[in-house]
Amino acid sequence: MSFVKANGIVGQSGGPTAAINASLCGIIRGACGKLNKLYGMENGISGLLQGRVVDLSLLFNNNMALSDLELTPSAALGSCRLKLPKDFNSPIYSKIFEILEKHSMGYLFYIGGNDSMDTVAKLSAYSKEKSLGVSVIGIPKTIDNDLVLTDHTPGYGSAAKYVATTVYEISRDISAYKLPSVTIVEVMGRDAGWIGCSCALSKHVFGKGADLIYLPEGEFTVGRFLQDVKNKLKQKSDVLVCVCEGVNLGTRAEGKDPFGHVQLSGVGKLLEGEVKRKIGCKARSIELNLPQRCAGHLVSGTDIDESVMAGKYAAELALDGVSGKMVAFVRKSGEYGVDLTCVDADLVANEIKRVPRDFIDSENSYITQKGIDYVLPLIQGEKNVKYVMGMPHHFEIEDYLCTK
Amino acid sequence: MSFVKANGIVGQSGGPTAAINASLCGIIRGACGKLNKLYGMENGISGLLQGRVVDLSLLFNNNMALSDLELTPSAALGSCRLKLPKDFNSPIYSKIFEILEKHSMGYLFYIGGNDSMDTVAKLSAYSKEKSLGVSVIGIPKTIDNDLVLTDHTPGYGSAAKYVATTVYEISRDISAYKLPSVTIVEVMGRDAGWIGCSCALSKHVFGKGADLIYLPEGEFTVGRFLQDVKNKLKQKSDVLVCVCEGVNLGTRAEGKDPFGHVQLSGVGKLLEGEVKRKIGCKARSIELNLPQRCAGHLVSGTDIDESVMAGKYAAELALDGVSGKMVAFVRKSGEYGVDLTCVDADLVANEIKRVPRDFIDSENSYITQKGIDYVLPLIQGEKNVKYVMGMPHHFEIEDYLCTK
Repeated sequence: MSFVKANGIVGQSGGPTAAINASLCGIIRGACGKLNKLYGMENGISGLLQGRVVDLSLLFNNNMALSDLELTPSAALGSCRLKLPKDFNSPIYSKIFEILEKHSMGYLFYIGGNDSMDTVAKLSAYSKEKSLGVSVIGIPKTIDNDLVLTDHTPGYGSAAKYVATTVYEISRDISAYKLPSVTIVEVMGRDAGWIGCSCALSKHVFGKGADLIYLPEGEFTVGRFLQDVKNKLKQKSDVLVCVCEGVNLGTRAEGKDPFGHVQLSGVGKLLEGEVKRKIGCKARSIELNLPQRCAGHLVSGTDIDESVMAGKYAAELALDGVSGKMVAFVRKSGEYGVDLTCVDADLVANEIKRVPRDFIDSENSYITQKGIDYVLPLIQGEKNVKYVMGMPHHFEIEDYLCTK
Repeated sequence: MSFVKANGIVGQSGGPTAAINASLCGIIRGACGKLNKLYGMENGISGLLQGRVVDLSLLFNNNMALSDLELTPSAALGSCRLKLPKDFNSPIYSKIFEILEKHSMGYLFYIGGNDSMDTVAKLSAYSKEKSLGVSVIGIPKTIDNDLVLTDHTPGYGSAAKYVATTVYEISRDISAYKLPSVTIVEVMGRDAGWIGCSCALSKHVFGKGADLIYLPEGEFTVGRFLQDVKNKLKQKSDVLVCVCEGVNLGTRAEGKDPFGHVQLSGVGKLLEGEVKRKIGCKARSIELNLPQRCAGHLVSGTDIDESVMAGKYAAELALDGVSGKMVAFVRKSGEYGVDLTCVDADLVANEIKRVPRDFIDSENSYITQKGIDYVLPLIQGEKNVKYVMGMPHHFEIEDYLCTK
């Protein structure tokens, strides 16, 4: 049941980032003039299954809208978390491909993380098995930077820039007083400490920033942490510690709130309590939380440009009939730059890329020069964010498209 | 013991802000050509008492350094929290004025909040009582905006812009999914909810942002909060709540951590727990924490310009022999603008200006048009922050001055 394939469709999936719309933008720009129509699924595959699609072709030649979209954080099309079943006999597959056929969609783009690459691999395999001829291409996206087979992922550079800047600003703030104090900044990174690496940048460049950095990949004990902090307090009064949410505490991070209920506490808050009790000085913890992935006002120019490139390249690949692949970055040697390539989506699916051991120092409490050299180029460059009434102006899908 | 007064000195005190260095910059610019030398006290009055002063005259004609200083967050001179004794017989007073005399300092500028205005009032009163002829001028500074007798305070506009932007970005992030969820953003404001007012701006301008806002000035109960959230969940899936740290919970915000120790919890975390238990949907809390006062990369142009103006005006006042006064803003009627004036520092000292009742709606769960009209002009305008190696470049006092 091969069908006419004049059109394409794109979806966004998983946790949003500050660059996921830049990749969407790249696909729209890449498809313009090549595809008759490009549709967007609202809330990824979940929305597609409900027939919720919008006509993105309306943006094809609207440069102003596309520029706005490029710098708008979060997922303009909405996102979902839906894992497709293993069994191709599931009616979910026939339903998806019926919708594609109905709209003559021969090209499916899915922007997401390792779960989304699982979706790409499965849809591509199904299309091949049934000889449907649909090209399915994945575009990587995650601030966690934990996808294998690519030098880094779109979204990571902007998160790293936001974290590097915020850690620098916090280090200045806490240096205003002369009293001994310990400030603990908790950053994202449940399984992999890539964002933690960016905490080392301001000290490297300006001499001010994190004094200690702990990643999930490094050995960690509360006792050792306290000893590290005590040692730093002998050298300076305002000690700044950065810790990834996923460091192994050796205890479940649970406490009871004033109503007597069990409460999940972040690692930062727990270590703050330990410092207060065991060292006795002023301590504060700061969880950077969601702004790490949605601070569109402070994006990395490199990240945004590469995210657009990845989207454009995905359009090229699809039009060349490639399927089941994810766009990937290969870092050039010498001066920073990337070459685009593609890798099998099923090799990326469900895998996690961890920070290499040689990015972490022998004390497990800081980032090595190698780690700094890896992340520093990714935060370079700024974008001119448009401000309206004192706040960044974002793309609003409702302004341009109606659901059809 | 009146003495030669060719020189001046300036100090910064209390919690730093993103605009406190802009006021310092204004004083330096205002003193240039008028005073022989301008000194800076390191860590405020505490540092002065230890003789830790730097020669700021070295910056008099260094426009590049001053431009950097203007956009550098935190207190470049360092800060302190020291309350002067009531008794003028305390040796602390004679010591301070001995130092002033030694350096021929006839003009003392102190940038700070209501505790600092207490210092200004006392030093001025002491100088008058002893006929020492030192002009002591206060320059307001606090992100909390809770100083009386001024329309608003330097530092507040930048904090408000950061919070308005971040709340807007978070609202976009959480709207990516279709599942019911409640996100609680905790902002600063222990006694007064001025920062909470800025949480209403993005919804007002762009239609996306906080759905519910609670200030310390409004009546608050957990039961009422839960009912408000339930009502919002009937209208939309992603409910965003902003709450000031100082809302009255009717219980002490204490819990026990996994090690069995008492832990202070923020109001956001507590309400998150209540939503999970009583409503049962996904809930998350985000404490914006220190970045609210130190995010130099996202300052309000209006705030920075006014902070510089306040510093310059302070220099004028001091040179005119005024003493014991704090610079204040009077808002013009019609199109936004401010006139500068000065008020008695002792009337500002130790007082707190609360958000007026008519800025809060009758349900105690949002900001009125009057509140929005008050804060919106204060976040207008952006500054061209200089980036070096992907991070904002900050002024480093060590690059220009040596301690003397």
